[in-house]
Amino acid sequence: MVRHDGHGDHTQGGVTIATVTVRFISEEDSAATKQVTVPVGTLVSDAAQQVGIDVQMPCGGQGRCGRCAVIVKEGEVRRRSTQRLSPDDVAAGYALACQATLESDAVIVVPPQERIERRIKEGKRAKKVELPFPYHVSDQPLRKVVVTLEEPSLHDQTDDWSRLKREMARRYDLRDVEASLHVLRKMGRALREGEWTVTVVLETDNQARPDGPPRILDILPGEHLESLWGAAIDIGTTSNVVWLVDLLSGEVMAQAVDYNGQIARGEDVISRIIYASKGNGLQELQELVVGTLNRLLGQVAQERGIGVDEIYRVVVAGNSTMIHLFAGIPPESIRLMPFITAINQLPPFSARDIGLGVNPEAAVDCLPGIASYVGADITAGVVSSGMCGVQDQLTLFVDIGTNGEIVLGDCSWLISCACSAGPAFEGAGVVHGMRATAGAIEEVWVNPENHEVTYRVIGEEKPRGICGSGLIGLIAEMFVAGVIDKSGNIDLTLPTPRVRQGGHGPEYVVAWASEAAFGEDIAITAVDIDNLMRAKAAIYAGFSVLARSVGLTLADVGQVLIGGAFGQYINVEKGVQVGLLPDKPFDNFHFLGNTSVRGSYVALLSREMRQRVDEIGQMMTYLELSADNSFFDEFNAAMFLPHTDEMQFPSVAALKK
Amino acid sequence: MVRHDGHGDHTQGGVTIATVTVRFISEEDSAATKQVTVPVGTLVSDAAQQVGIDVQMPCGGQGRCGRCAVIVKEGEVRRRSTQRLSPDDVAAGYALACQATLESDAVIVVPPQERIERRIKEGKRAKKVELPFPYHVSDQPLRKVVVTLEEPSLHDQTDDWSRLKREMARRYDLRDVEASLHVLRKMGRALREGEWTVTVVLETDNQARPDGPPRILDILPGEHLESLWGAAIDIGTTSNVVWLVDLLSGEVMAQAVDYNGQIARGEDVISRIIYASKGNGLQELQELVVGTLNRLLGQVAQERGIGVDEIYRVVVAGNSTMIHLFAGIPPESIRLMPFITAINQLPPFSARDIGLGVNPEAAVDCLPGIASYVGADITAGVVSSGMCGVQDQLTLFVDIGTNGEIVLGDCSWLISCACSAGPAFEGAGVVHGMRATAGAIEEVWVNPENHEVTYRVIGEEKPRGICGSGLIGLIAEMFVAGVIDKSGNIDLTLPTPRVRQGGHGPEYVVAWASEAAFGEDIAITAVDIDNLMRAKAAIYAGFSVLARSVGLTLADVGQVLIGGAFGQYINVEKGVQVGLLPDKPFDNFHFLGNTSVRGSYVALLSREMRQRVDEIGQMMTYLELSADNSFFDEFNAAMFLPHTDEMQFPSVAALKK
Repeated sequence: MVRHDGHGDHTQGGVTIATVTVRFISEEDSAATKQVTVPVGTLVSDAAQQVGIDVQMPCGGQGRCGRCAVIVKEGEVRRRSTQRLSPDDVAAGYALACQATLESDAVIVVPPQERIERRIKEGKRAKKVELPFPYHVSDQPLRKVVVTLEEPSLHDQTDDWSRLKREMARRYDLRDVEASLHVLRKMGRALREGEWTVTVVLETDNQARPDGPPRILDILPGEHLESLWGAAIDIGTTSNVVWLVDLLSGEVMAQAVDYNGQIARGEDVISRIIYASKGNGLQELQELVVGTLNRLLGQVAQERGIGVDEIYRVVVAGNSTMIHLFAGIPPESIRLMPFITAINQLPPFSARDIGLGVNPEAAVDCLPGIASYVGADITAGVVSSGMCGVQDQLTLFVDIGTNGEIVLGDCSWLISCACSAGPAFEGAGVVHGMRATAGAIEEVWVNPENHEVTYRVIGEEKPRGICGSGLIGLIAEMFVAGVIDKSGNIDLTLPTPRVRQGGHGPEYVVAWASEAAFGEDIAITAVDIDNLMRAKAAIYAGFSVLARSVGLTLADVGQVLIGGAFGQYINVEKGVQVGLLPDKPFDNFHFLGNTSVRGSYVALLSREMRQRVDEIGQMMTYLELSADNSFFDEFNAAMFLPHTDEMQFPSVAALKK
Repeated sequence: MVRHDGHGDHTQGGVTIATVTVRFISEEDSAATKQVTVPVGTLVSDAAQQVGIDVQMPCGGQGRCGRCAVIVKEGEVRRRSTQRLSPDDVAAGYALACQATLESDAVIVVPPQERIERRIKEGKRAKKVELPFPYHVSDQPLRKVVVTLEEPSLHDQTDDWSRLKREMARRYDLRDVEASLHVLRKMGRALREGEWTVTVVLETDNQARPDGPPRILDILPGEHLESLWGAAIDIGTTSNVVWLVDLLSGEVMAQAVDYNGQIARGEDVISRIIYASKGNGLQELQELVVGTLNRLLGQVAQERGIGVDEIYRVVVAGNSTMIHLFAGIPPESIRLMPFITAINQLPPFSARDIGLGVNPEAAVDCLPGIASYVGADITAGVVSSGMCGVQDQLTLFVDIGTNGEIVLGDCSWLISCACSAGPAFEGAGVVHGMRATAGAIEEVWVNPENHEVTYRVIGEEKPRGICGSGLIGLIAEMFVAGVIDKSGNIDLTLPTPRVRQGGHGPEYVVAWASEAAFGEDIAITAVDIDNLMRAKAAIYAGFSVLARSVGLTLADVGQVLIGGAFGQYINVEKGVQVGLLPDKPFDNFHFLGNTSVRGSYVALLSREMRQRVDEIGQMMTYLELSADNSFFDEFNAAMFLPHTDEMQFPSVAALKK
């Protein structure tokens, strides 16, 4: 029995537990106050979660990223860690929600920019996807056949299942068909309801057993040849994408996208892996991502007026951690030396096995990855990028996010690596960083004369922070305008109030409090700049090491293909100026958008393309940078703007002259 | 909100529902009174179920069997049907629990002999089972191998799964092994916990895909070669049997038996099928039988001190209806013309799929049946009977229960049929019939001079009723002693008070009220005798039609094999005297006991024997008696004691002379 005496104590099983009452208030919306009573010593983040406030914890609650900072307006909290907070911050009442425990009744402000944003920039603006190649329904393994059986009689008492198999063999030469118990359970009624005519939905072969027997996925009473649906899925660490595909025509008929529901449990893969290794964390993360996907599958199905049960095949791409979590496979070993996945190539399994909201018999085919940090999103990306197309020239394929995954090759060979860039390009680890959502500064211009700033904000709102593309542009502009030197140091001697000593050291103000959404200056600090330079240096060093490992240089590269959502927003010129991208003519760069979901889509449409993904996975060599002696040297050489070796960036050198 | 005002009314959602309170009392145990308040119009059986009294409903609650009769001591019930009750019964307060609705507060007696007996005659007296043939562990498909992997390093980042597969191929030549998502989920931790040495439990092949790849059922950290367990199961309509088998030695290490939990929902297969077709009935029956089996599996595992998770393979036999219900497959078509099963040969499925309490990855292999009424219990029985052994003589195999399943052949050919004998031999449809449990009269002698009776009771208690073997013996004795004539008519002119006109017509008293457990006369009525004669005539007609259909007579039969639990207790001499069994020397009869579980056992031990079951299933012809014109004639000819054609029963004719 729990008795609440109203005076800050609970009696539970005879033991009195001291409690505190915490009130969460919003600076934006005074009606949004929420209150909860919890035991003394409860984490602020746990208390917030109890009243439905999702505090953003990109690092998974380890106190490392500083993104869950809240303001303690009244009451006492104990700060286990003040990492990421300056003494001024602490004096002003800031505390990390994941590190602060409640010691008294309290009033706490959760700053709105720290709440998890539920919108995605692209929203639902589904673009028309072109058929990637001439398509015929028999290119993929699903098939529907109509079967009419002879009615049983006292003189032919053959059981339903043998009768069905007999006719499928006779009429369609489909032999040794298999069916699960679940399908067999509905067979008898379907046959009688359809008056001995049924539509059988089959998977004629699958990736794991291409020569295996056909498998019956469904038996529908009567004739139903009018449709055949599949889904292509990309599970990003940040965003999940679902495409609903009409397998009769091959066309994408609906798209939906949303943040991965796991995001509140850690923003990057490392935080998710840590979260998954604790208590019930793995199951929770598995259910969160499946929950997100089921919502998206429901959306696309509704948009086309079909039932999700009509979706009979699903192909999934994603990085190795996302695929492990999706399948409920413990991902711990991915983050521990020597960085091993449990499995790179999952066998197809049933949607039922993981509760995916399509037909429960549908095969879920997860595309193969090749290493802990070069996953199915990359093999899928290479296939869909057309990298191995008509002109087999030396190509650099790069997917930039928290990690930069890089593939180099000409498709007679492929070599790949992953560089841990950190989350700086996604706006994390940067004081005023944010994702590319409404209110983010996405482009910046610095006047070299007076060092004043012009910027463009997504959604044309008052700025709330700076997103990745904005940060790259900002560094480039600051460098070209002389606000920072080639080492990234801010020149505090400049005659502008925008350069100054701030709470986190030297900083440059991009937007003044009066212009900004939350009434405080938006600045980039020396620490931020260092984080961004580490990120870009890691990726460029990856390029260099890969090329050198096969006896080539970046000068030999013909085209540069940039995949991933982030890639869509990079300004090539700025990317070259900071030394993130190799110095090539603009025409050599191709921005491909989400190559991962496109890879799922082509693998869904075509056995041949699906096979290609496997071949690419098998052909691709993986270079472990942490075991490569030259990486550290290349990284140090790249920790300049644009690079120690200016010969590699002639266009930037020309600009600075 | 439900408000109970204590005056026979409930208010529910604003609607007042009239209620009644019923008190169930026991004649045996006055402390066992149970009381419940239910809406007016509730079935007595439903009210009884609510307070945990399982009223026996062999016919599935259709009012046909009369076995759920209760005595209404006080209060009003409405009788929807009085079938099976005489006017005297109704006057005495008898009502069928499944047909009577409560119209007022009531006091009801549930006669103890009608409660479902939870004991089985054999109890747990496990007999030692001899190894049926020389056995080697490789005769069956399960295998355990110990695998030690090279530890991963930065220079060999092969994923866990590929690493495991690589070593299994290298060390044991096991290639292309498969594993379910569930096994893959535990792999990484098992490898690390075992410090890269694991024991892999494999199914090297299975019945559905003999050439398929090996399937991993489990991965255990470290070395665990000391045991390998399987289970052989027989799902009888009445009793379920589980044998725990040590697959290293082939020996049966523990046995358990109990009534099928479905029994309270119908005593014969027809009642169960009807029950399964209503509402949630199928799922309920599926869960009931799995519940019984799980309890038995728990018992045998505990007896040997192992976990049920260590049982990695299960072979199941049972009649077609039982197999359908076990797998959750709708059985409706079995009882409807033209009597079709949904499936005779189920593919092996995972224990997880049906919640069977062994290792969830264990393959559950249901042996094949051949028709609606000749199921896997018969194919298993034929294999385990040794019918197709060294001496291929013409053999009659018979399994007598509610149905008599009959197989005739010499193993170069086999023909089978099923005769619906009705439940008379199981004690149902007979006023004082009961199962072969404590208190049942199992053997009877009638003195031909004075027509007095001597009998033997199971458990040496006061008699409560007469079981199947007792009934056969009684008919035979009455016939030989002249109490009944060859048509089964009771001679009411005999100078003994044992013959009389009773409430159900002419009857013969076997035990007087003073001798009996419940203080009432135990008698056999003319109607009972008719039911028993129909049962024996159906089976004998089956023998005759089968023999005739292949141009033979019963005289050509060499041996008669009798399987099934009931078969164990038949007295051959009495069986011949009533014309149930063909007139052969005693030595030609062999009583084999439960041939069905023995068939599961041999199929569990040996691929070859498992294959033999399939072959027998394919070889066996099924003769549908309802489509056979001669069956009715043979049945009518057999509706005499022992038969119209006395030439077929020379030993009985000699006895009567």
